[in-house]
Amino acid sequence: MTDEEDARAPDGGEHEPICEHFQRAARLLARRWSPLIISALLAGNGRFTDIRDSIPGLSDRLLSERLKELETAGIVTRTVIPATPVRIEYGLTEQGQDLSGLLDEMRAWAERWAPVTATARRS
Amino acid sequence: MTDEEDARAPDGGEHEPICEHFQRAARLLARRWSPLIISALLAGNGRFTDIRDSIPGLSDRLLSERLKELETAGIVTRTVIPATPVRIEYGLTEQGQDLSGLLDEMRAWAERWAPVTATARRS
Repeated sequence: MTDEEDARAPDGGEHEPICEHFQRAARLLARRWSPLIISALLAGNGRFTDIRDSIPGLSDRLLSERLKELETAGIVTRTVIPATPVRIEYGLTEQGQDLSGLLDEMRAWAERWAPVTATARRS
Repeated sequence: MTDEEDARAPDGGEHEPICEHFQRAARLLARRWSPLIISALLAGNGRFTDIRDSIPGLSDRLLSERLKELETAGIVTRTVIPATPVRIEYGLTEQGQDLSGLLDEMRAWAERWAPVTATARRS
């Protein structure tokens, strides 16, 4: 996305992966709960139950589904700790941690504009 | 998204619109071409043909479709200028201009991580 070349079709050269990656990030963040799950991980919640309890309304099924998606996307890590009983710790990859600034920026944008939009819709 | 309350169901209180708005932004930016179209408008391209010509590979049909979506979303303005022939100028609303930082942040993230991911996939 550094220049116009990036909009080309998949055979369009070396910049293409950047455009793809950009859209991958946007698609991930557009999934309901995913930004909140990443935020919970950024805040240091590592266990399934901790993440779930920090996000009211999020079901076990959906949390499990989203964690798998984020793991596949290279955002979330899943570590099995051989204890009795076995413990599972979730965390963020470097790429996942690096979403922090982006999440802040999106949150700030939404906070600035959601009230305006809500007011416009009511009137 | 300022606190956990935001994850609640639609009956969950006043923070809900912020979460909705956050996801609306992510969904818009996840649409192919939309980030490039917003960037073209940020760069001052106001006419349909200018926008199209600045984004290689983008068809008239898709540009027109995306501009309509972005107009409905309160991001893009469309002004009919009564001249002969009639001229149409596209622009960004305040909310749309305010996406600039977010787009930069996403682009920077994609630029940092796309090469890493591409390498990992090849190996």
